[in-house]
Amino acid sequence: MSAIKAAIVGGTGYTGVELLRLLAGHPGVEVTAITSRAEAGTPVSELFPSLRGHYDLKFCAPDIEQLAACDVVFFATPHGVAQAQVPELISRGVRVIDLSADFRIKDIATWEQWYGQKHACPELAADAVYGLPEVNRAQIVDAQLLACPGCYPTAIQLGFIPLLEAGLISPENLIANAASGASGAGRQGKTELLFAENNDSFRAYAAGGHRHLPEIEQGLGGVHTGSGDVRLTFVPHLLPTVRGIHATLYGTLAQDTSVEALQALFEKRYRDEPFVDVMPAGSHPQTRSVRGTNMCRIAVLKPQDRNTVVVLSVIDNLAKGASAQAIQNLNIMFGLNENQGLESPALLP
Amino acid sequence: MSAIKAAIVGGTGYTGVELLRLLAGHPGVEVTAITSRAEAGTPVSELFPSLRGHYDLKFCAPDIEQLAACDVVFFATPHGVAQAQVPELISRGVRVIDLSADFRIKDIATWEQWYGQKHACPELAADAVYGLPEVNRAQIVDAQLLACPGCYPTAIQLGFIPLLEAGLISPENLIANAASGASGAGRQGKTELLFAENNDSFRAYAAGGHRHLPEIEQGLGGVHTGSGDVRLTFVPHLLPTVRGIHATLYGTLAQDTSVEALQALFEKRYRDEPFVDVMPAGSHPQTRSVRGTNMCRIAVLKPQDRNTVVVLSVIDNLAKGASAQAIQNLNIMFGLNENQGLESPALLP
Amino acid sequence: MSAIKAAIVGGTGYTGVELLRLLAGHPGVEVTAITSRAEAGTPVSELFPSLRGHYDLKFCAPDIEQLAACDVVFFATPHGVAQAQVPELISRGVRVIDLSADFRIKDIATWEQWYGQKHACPELAADAVYGLPEVNRAQIVDAQLLACPGCYPTAIQLGFIPLLEAGLISPENLIANAASGASGAGRQGKTELLFAENNDSFRAYAAGGHRHLPEIEQGLGGVHTGSGDVRLTFVPHLLPTVRGIHATLYGTLAQDTSVEALQALFEKRYRDEPFVDVMPAGSHPQTRSVRGTNMCRIAVLKPQDRNTVVVLSVIDNLAKGASAQAIQNLNIMFGLNENQGLESPALLP
Amino acid sequence: MSAIKAAIVGGTGYTGVELLRLLAGHPGVEVTAITSRAEAGTPVSELFPSLRGHYDLKFCAPDIEQLAACDVVFFATPHGVAQAQVPELISRGVRVIDLSADFRIKDIATWEQWYGQKHACPELAADAVYGLPEVNRAQIVDAQLLACPGCYPTAIQLGFIPLLEAGLISPENLIANAASGASGAGRQGKTELLFAENNDSFRAYAAGGHRHLPEIEQGLGGVHTGSGDVRLTFVPHLLPTVRGIHATLYGTLAQDTSVEALQALFEKRYRDEPFVDVMPAGSHPQTRSVRGTNMCRIAVLKPQDRNTVVVLSVIDNLAKGASAQAIQNLNIMFGLNENQGLESPALLP
Repeated sequence: MSAIKAAIVGGTGYTGVELLRLLAGHPGVEVTAITSRAEAGTPVSELFPSLRGHYDLKFCAPDIEQLAACDVVFFATPHGVAQAQVPELISRGVRVIDLSADFRIKDIATWEQWYGQKHACPELAADAVYGLPEVNRAQIVDAQLLACPGCYPTAIQLGFIPLLEAGLISPENLIANAASGASGAGRQGKTELLFAENNDSFRAYAAGGHRHLPEIEQGLGGVHTGSGDVRLTFVPHLLPTVRGIHATLYGTLAQDTSVEALQALFEKRYRDEPFVDVMPAGSHPQTRSVRGTNMCRIAVLKPQDRNTVVVLSVIDNLAKGASAQAIQNLNIMFGLNENQGLESPALLP
Repeated sequence: MSAIKAAIVGGTGYTGVELLRLLAGHPGVEVTAITSRAEAGTPVSELFPSLRGHYDLKFCAPDIEQLAACDVVFFATPHGVAQAQVPELISRGVRVIDLSADFRIKDIATWEQWYGQKHACPELAADAVYGLPEVNRAQIVDAQLLACPGCYPTAIQLGFIPLLEAGLISPENLIANAASGASGAGRQGKTELLFAENNDSFRAYAAGGHRHLPEIEQGLGGVHTGSGDVRLTFVPHLLPTVRGIHATLYGTLAQDTSVEALQALFEKRYRDEPFVDVMPAGSHPQTRSVRGTNMCRIAVLKPQDRNTVVVLSVIDNLAKGASAQAIQNLNIMFGLNENQGLESPALLP
Repeated sequence: MSAIKAAIVGGTGYTGVELLRLLAGHPGVEVTAITSRAEAGTPVSELFPSLRGHYDLKFCAPDIEQLAACDVVFFATPHGVAQAQVPELISRGVRVIDLSADFRIKDIATWEQWYGQKHACPELAADAVYGLPEVNRAQIVDAQLLACPGCYPTAIQLGFIPLLEAGLISPENLIANAASGASGAGRQGKTELLFAENNDSFRAYAAGGHRHLPEIEQGLGGVHTGSGDVRLTFVPHLLPTVRGIHATLYGTLAQDTSVEALQALFEKRYRDEPFVDVMPAGSHPQTRSVRGTNMCRIAVLKPQDRNTVVVLSVIDNLAKGASAQAIQNLNIMFGLNENQGLESPALLP
Repeated sequence: MSAIKAAIVGGTGYTGVELLRLLAGHPGVEVTAITSRAEAGTPVSELFPSLRGHYDLKFCAPDIEQLAACDVVFFATPHGVAQAQVPELISRGVRVIDLSADFRIKDIATWEQWYGQKHACPELAADAVYGLPEVNRAQIVDAQLLACPGCYPTAIQLGFIPLLEAGLISPENLIANAASGASGAGRQGKTELLFAENNDSFRAYAAGGHRHLPEIEQGLGGVHTGSGDVRLTFVPHLLPTVRGIHATLYGTLAQDTSVEALQALFEKRYRDEPFVDVMPAGSHPQTRSVRGTNMCRIAVLKPQDRNTVVVLSVIDNLAKGASAQAIQNLNIMFGLNENQGLESPALLP
């Protein structure tokens, strides 16, 4: 089989370089173009010396003909960009994997409220497939437009899903206390993201309301089997790390359930999932244990044997939380082995 | 007034060097001895070069006569040590400030269960005063034996106290998601505390049960005015920072309360407290904003205007969480200005 | 004596907040104004929460009358700003302490070459006193315009001075391999200074030529007693730390000199200096041992007893490398105790 | 061809887990055993959760029969261990790749002086091949006992080799100012390696004499073509990073040579080397650009066009500085493609 031709739109950010890093080891995909207006003409290996010897590509200005000649186009752009460019690509038969937030939310009013702008193509949003393979694998196979989940939503949903599918916890007072490495905030030069502002310090941010909240509530609402609406209190924090998301999730057990039963539930739910690892009871997964990989590691606890269940869920925000999950989706969409290009163990230490 | 003579037992750890650092700038206290069996004879400035030029002291083997000649003795030792040595000091009229966990818990059975050993002097534990000035200032004045609160318990109690005193939240499903810098785990060489094990990574630990849990529940139980027992789910995490505790607290409002009313409640409760700073609504306190100081900074939020209240509380684990709070207690015990030796702003950046 | 009235021009950067932090504990100085066009009207404690409770000041737009009413004005501005504003202040009798590079270099052509612009007042540059107290204390006393040394130049000069004054090393092949924390690069949002770009990584920068080179060569040339010109190879590096400069200096011994003689030379040279600490032979000073202080710690070595002498010199770039040294200079200029406001030990750990 | 059977002796350290990480992606090698007395019976994935799903191996006690049944045995042990066990393996025809220092130094008296113990098999040391492929590739092919270079020696030799081979610099006053991430010091719990001791700080260590010095001088002496002995001043530093070595090398040009000629020299020398990347003139290689890879990136500079040449050389201490270079050597020894298992780009950011 000839290689799948892929392009990356907006490749100067961290999800762009992460796509390139992972695709360098993917035998079935060839990156034919990577666009950036600001860096057009610059070799990718100049901006990212880690790629010297791996790519001869230069960033190029976006060109619809070039993109339309690909089998698949990744959007690694800020929100608002993909929705303007995707319709034409879709209409010309190109499959699109969007890593931005443009097509994650089905309710357009909600999207417009949280992202503060008019949505450019609500009709496509309705057709977009939400790319969380652990829930939507069947639909992903045929997706024309794939909306890759956000980083926090991936870690948090994978931690709550077994409990909500089984109706074991009350959906109305979920708590997700999560922390992300600084790469999650992007590669833009901003004072609050400086090394000197964040090293040896820690803080919450957007505790009053983060854009990933409606995405998570939508996803959890879709799998919840019991009565009541899903309502989540979500407080993100900024870690002095480059990568990694650690979610500490709290739910109130609707009925008495032993920790052994909880463990068994999680193990069964994810038994066939190549990228969800349910660790032994009592484990404390570290973010470094998934660094650079598509893996989500999960542990479930029931402290003091009371009625609160605690789930610890870790991913790499740039990998399972973005670019590696995008490749997992590509593998599913194109009928490849699901873990192609995603087999390397995490970099530890 | 002549200076208060103070000794430090077990001074080679981080709370020891922090006491020395802070007392170097305290005009009313003179450190006359600092003990360490292992380092007896070593100048403190050799172990801690930051103190070169500030102290001529050498570590010395513990000598009861030398300690008994002091006005106050700090114990900066692992648990189990103070309870063996304190009785004689107390009987000889020396006041003791214990930074360890030996006298924090009133229920001896609970102490013995969590610390895994027999308590050596339960009768003294009953008399010990729990040194959280924001709750116990009056009793601290006359304390002979002062039990300094733990680091997590300080940050967490200060965040929950106004809500529980006012009976505004249900006491039975409190959640404290907290994170500490690595200095909180001490200066012992352990693989899991190595730089190479923790940098650029993050994890929970002791999620199944941390020794600070009973201390916090005891303290919160003491201030709670409503019905029901205090039950806390407490999940600590290890930050890749040297100092700092960040507690993210969640409570369920027992009745509808506006965020403005919550803010006013906190501001009123701590209006006269020199070391609790209620930040403006919507703030996200950073651990670095209290680095090296006795300050606790707090923000209160009510995300999405739902019925969950979120409190963010930060301290420096070695300062307000240990040695600076010990000095605050000393100032109260000896009738000094409460903020003597504790006035310097935090080191930022 | 009434307090010295001081203003800070350009106070939103790291040297500005460091001046405020240190002056909060200085009994003889009152900060009456701090200027920033961009942040005019913002309370300093809003931008820097570490200062909450310490200052009621707001940033204000620069106003010459307000500045002229002060005893001393600090310039904590990028180069090019002070030279435009200082002449009028000087003419009105205000003393100026400039933390920028505007008046450090005596040779105006050299300044213009390295800083890439025309100098606005060469005549003042000639009168400016270079504020390295260990060399220029006598002149500092009467300085009207004080040029505070750069951070690298402070650490590097203090390390080489004893050797060059004594004519012990060849001046023509000096090597300064130095590393700085990220705060040295300022508080501007730039991609290359992001946390995600620098954590867990290390690199040299400006190895082809750094602006501090001519300043260092000028200073060392001034103290060198032997024949030959001072020529320095200076390679700076960017550390994944917030603060700290570590200089590793290499010189070729012009004549055989024992390590004991070298140690004695350094100890004698700095015996009366309150802020230079010559550590025991064989020491390896850590940057954290001077964190937040005006101290420079130095160790001298002679590896393998060959003819290369190695000097290790550490300072805090924002303190002895900028704001604390500025206060040391103020103390000297105004006849105060030289270490007022500068007595606190370093924050360790 | 059937897979090469490999065992790892002493696999609980960082070079052990790094071998496992890299070999997980090597199609030609099967790890059949990994030994550790202390952890015998523990699954490797329990100690290193990053390997969950990649290995079913448990650590086992060393068993000579099991080791003798392998094609190759890696020693990832402290010095002194391999020399006791290697002779029997060699005599039974097993090829050995030793990552420790036991067989790097040809002069046994020098080895014994620096390592402070008697060498157990000097005769084998004479036969051992020093595994720096860029110098010794031909001998490596047939090596029975391969001594893997140290981490500092790899980075420093690769930077100096072109200059010394060409006789362009004086060999007698070489300077290597180098810095290593904390993983280079191993996984033993030691106070001085704690996170709280090293984060946000930086220091030199072993400046008076580091064990890698004689190894480097031996290697450089072997390639130097001019007159005079190689004498190096080598000052190592401890970085607050997990991985990475950055060497900043200084040499005095023996004759005037343009920076263009220097650049051309390096490019020509390493043109055919798969794992040495000569970057464009003026580059500043970052340690993260080689994180997790076998690559050495080098830049050459001639500051101020004076007679000092500066070479910047970065590697990953655990990869090209240890385990990846070991695999490169294995590939050469067993006639495999030299970059098998070593193709992945660095993890950046």
